[in-house]
Amino acid sequence: MTDNTTGKSRRAFLKGAAMTGVGLAAGQANAASPDPLITEVQPWASGLGDGVDAAPYGMPIEYEDDVVRRNVEWLTADTISSINFTPIHALDGTITPQGCAFERHHSGAIELKKEDYRLMINGMVDQPLVFTYADLERFPRENHVYFCECAANTGMEWAGAQLNGAQFTHGMIHNMEYTGVPLRTLLEEAGYDTAGKWVYVEGADASSNGRSIPMEKALDDVLVAFKANGEALRKEHGYPVRLVVPGWEGNMWVKWIRRIEVANAPVESREETSKYTDVLANGVARKWTWEMDAKSVVTSPSPQAPISHGKGPLVISGLAWSGRGAIKRVDVSVDGGKTWQTARLAKPGEKMALTRFYLDTEWNGEEMLLQSRAMDETGYVQPTKAQLREVRGLNSIYHNNCIQTWLVRANGEAENVEVS
Amino acid sequence: MTDNTTGKSRRAFLKGAAMTGVGLAAGQANAASPDPLITEVQPWASGLGDGVDAAPYGMPIEYEDDVVRRNVEWLTADTISSINFTPIHALDGTITPQGCAFERHHSGAIELKKEDYRLMINGMVDQPLVFTYADLERFPRENHVYFCECAANTGMEWAGAQLNGAQFTHGMIHNMEYTGVPLRTLLEEAGYDTAGKWVYVEGADASSNGRSIPMEKALDDVLVAFKANGEALRKEHGYPVRLVVPGWEGNMWVKWIRRIEVANAPVESREETSKYTDVLANGVARKWTWEMDAKSVVTSPSPQAPISHGKGPLVISGLAWSGRGAIKRVDVSVDGGKTWQTARLAKPGEKMALTRFYLDTEWNGEEMLLQSRAMDETGYVQPTKAQLREVRGLNSIYHNNCIQTWLVRANGEAENVEVS
Repeated sequence: MTDNTTGKSRRAFLKGAAMTGVGLAAGQANAASPDPLITEVQPWASGLGDGVDAAPYGMPIEYEDDVVRRNVEWLTADTISSINFTPIHALDGTITPQGCAFERHHSGAIELKKEDYRLMINGMVDQPLVFTYADLERFPRENHVYFCECAANTGMEWAGAQLNGAQFTHGMIHNMEYTGVPLRTLLEEAGYDTAGKWVYVEGADASSNGRSIPMEKALDDVLVAFKANGEALRKEHGYPVRLVVPGWEGNMWVKWIRRIEVANAPVESREETSKYTDVLANGVARKWTWEMDAKSVVTSPSPQAPISHGKGPLVISGLAWSGRGAIKRVDVSVDGGKTWQTARLAKPGEKMALTRFYLDTEWNGEEMLLQSRAMDETGYVQPTKAQLREVRGLNSIYHNNCIQTWLVRANGEAENVEVS
Repeated sequence: MTDNTTGKSRRAFLKGAAMTGVGLAAGQANAASPDPLITEVQPWASGLGDGVDAAPYGMPIEYEDDVVRRNVEWLTADTISSINFTPIHALDGTITPQGCAFERHHSGAIELKKEDYRLMINGMVDQPLVFTYADLERFPRENHVYFCECAANTGMEWAGAQLNGAQFTHGMIHNMEYTGVPLRTLLEEAGYDTAGKWVYVEGADASSNGRSIPMEKALDDVLVAFKANGEALRKEHGYPVRLVVPGWEGNMWVKWIRRIEVANAPVESREETSKYTDVLANGVARKWTWEMDAKSVVTSPSPQAPISHGKGPLVISGLAWSGRGAIKRVDVSVDGGKTWQTARLAKPGEKMALTRFYLDTEWNGEEMLLQSRAMDETGYVQPTKAQLREVRGLNSIYHNNCIQTWLVRANGEAENVEVS
C-alpha cells in the first residue's frame, strides 16, 4: 500500500465513509471542532485505577453486562428442564467463554464434588470398573477444540421466522478447548467385548439423560472430559466430568457422566425415541440423527447487533460449523440468495469446531437480505429453508440447519425474516 | 489393544497401581466392600438441580474457588502498581480464561467506556487520525491465539529458589484468542512515512506506559485488539482496546491504548531505560530485549499440585512457549537434568502460543528432581539456571527463562529447589 513516489503509504479505507461517534469524517482529527476526549485530560488518565486484588476471578466490565446467556420464558414450562442461549451476536473469534456458553438441562444443573464423583464402566467387559476423579487424571489426556450444538438449535424456525436475534435462533452452541481422556482408553482398560457394538451412557442427574452411542464412534474421538478452556467445567456444563462427542448432537454429550455400559444393542431410551427423533411429513420418524449438518449464521449485523454507522466500510461476520468435518467455504449474500460472495475464513476450518468468517465489504446504505451458507469438507452445502422443508416437512424440532435470513434496513436495524 | 484370541481388549493401565480415593485397586469395582456412592441413590440423582436462569454469566463452581489469580503481598509496595499470577498449576490445555489471566498494572486498572474511547495515530503520517471504537470495528479483523508473558515472569528466581508454586514462579503468562485489526492497516490508513522506523505507543491510564516498537514489528503481526476468547477484554486487560505484540514482552502490549506516534527514533522512555532493561554482571545494561526466549515449566506435579496417589501411572504435564516461533520439542527429566525423555505435545506447536506437553509415565514412588526444557523452531534450547547466570550474571529482573526444578518427595509433595 506504499506509494513509492512520495514515500508515504495510504489506504484511506474509511475516507469519505459515513460519520461515526465523534462526528468526524471517519477517523480524521478535526482541529476546527476539537474533541474534548482528545484535548482535555480525562479522569482515567489523571488518577489511579483498581489494584490487582480487586477481583481474584475477573468478571466482565459493567458496560458488557448485556453479553450474557438468556432464556426465552415462553419456550419451556419451567427453567429446570429448559435452555438458555449463548450471546453469539456479541462475540467474535471462535472460542466461547464458559461463562456465556449455553446451558440445557433436563432436571437442572446438579452439584457434584470431585470427591463424590464415580464413573462406572460395565456390561460386556472383561472387568467392570469404577473410576474416581483422581483415577481419570492418571490416564493420558488429549486437548481438542470442538463445538457442542443442541439438536434443537434453530428448531423454532421450522415453521417460520420466530425469534428475533442470532442468540435465540442459533445460540444453542458453544465451542471450547476440552481436556480429557479418550473413552477408548477407558473401554480398553475395562476390556470391552468386541462383540459389543454399542455403549449406553448416562449422567448422574435425576434425568440420567441416557443415550446409545455406536461403539465405532465411542472408540474414535469421544472424550471423557474434565476441563474446558483450561479450567474445570462449570457446574452447568457437567462438573466435574462430561462426555464430549465431537460433531454429534449436544444431548449425547452427557453431563455428570456416571455410567458407560457396553452392549450389543442400543437401549432405545426416551432420549432417542420420543425425543431427539424427527417426524417427517409422512409421519415416519428419522432416528439416529446424530451428526450435526453443516450450518452457518451471520452474527453481525443481526437483530441484536444492528449497523451503528452509515454506508461505507462494513464488516459482515459470522460462524460456520459441521459435524462431519472441517468447513471449507462460506458464502455470503446481501440479496436473499440471488448472488453470493465468498467470505474470508479467519483460519482454515478445523474438524468439528467453529469457524469464524468475515466479509469485508462496502455497504451502499440500502436494505439487505443477508444470508450465509456453509460448505464442509464432504462437499455438503447448507440448504435453504425451502429445500429443507421439502425433504423433512414441517413436523421436525431438531436438526434445522437451513440458511438464515436477516432483513437489514436502511437505518441499520435488522430482523429475522423468511424469503421464498 | 484387542486380544484377538478372546475377543476382548484390555490395557490394564491402572492394574496393580496404588489405591486412590475409594480404596480400591485402581478403578476396580469391589463387591466385598461396596462403595455407597455406587450402591446408594444420591441426592443429586433424586432431586432437581439449578434452572437455566440461575446465573446469566456462569461462574466457577464453589469447589474451584482456589483456582484464582493471586498476588504476593511482599513483592510490591501496593496493589496499584503490582502484579498477580495466573493459577497455571490448576489449568490444563492451552487457553487461559480471562477470569484467571494475570494482571500487571502500573497505575491501576482504569474504567473506560467504549463511547469515551479514542485512538490517535500521529507523528510522521500523511494525515493524523483519531479513531473511535466504532471506527475500529469497520476494518478487516484477524483472530490469533498468542501468549502474553510479563518480562518479569520468573524474575524472583535469579537469586535462588524463592517462590513455592508454578503460579508464582511462572504465572505472569496467559494465552488467549485475540480478535483485532492489524496495526499495519491503521498505519496505512494514516499514511505512515516510510522514513519512520519506529512507533511510540501509549495507554490512556495515568502511567501511560509508553513504549517504542520498531516499525518492522508494527507492520508485521501487531494487533489492535478488542476481543479475547471471543468476549470484550476484561477491564484489567485493557478494555476496550489493547495492543497485542506477539512473542514480545507483556509490557509492550499496551492496555487502553490511546496513541500511536510514527517517529524516526525510539523515545527511550522510562519503561525501556530504567525499567525493562537487564543489568549484566559488568554493569552494562542490555536493552531492546523484546522477544521472550523459549521457556517451559512443569505445572503438575508442582508445589501447588502435589501427587495425590502412590506409585504407578503418573501424568506429568506442563506448558512451553517461545517468542521466536513455534515450540518443536519439550524434554522432561525426573533426575535433575541427568537424563531426559521427550514429552508428547498435545498439538503441534503454534507460533507465539502456549503449547501443552504431557509425559505419560510410571512413577516408582521415589523422590524426583523434575525439570522440563523447551526447544523452539529456531533450534534454541532452554538453558539451565547456571548457564543463564554465566551469561547474564545475577543483577537481572527480567527475561529469566531458565529450566525450573521441582523436588517431588516420596509423599507426593513438591517444592521449588535449585540444582547445581
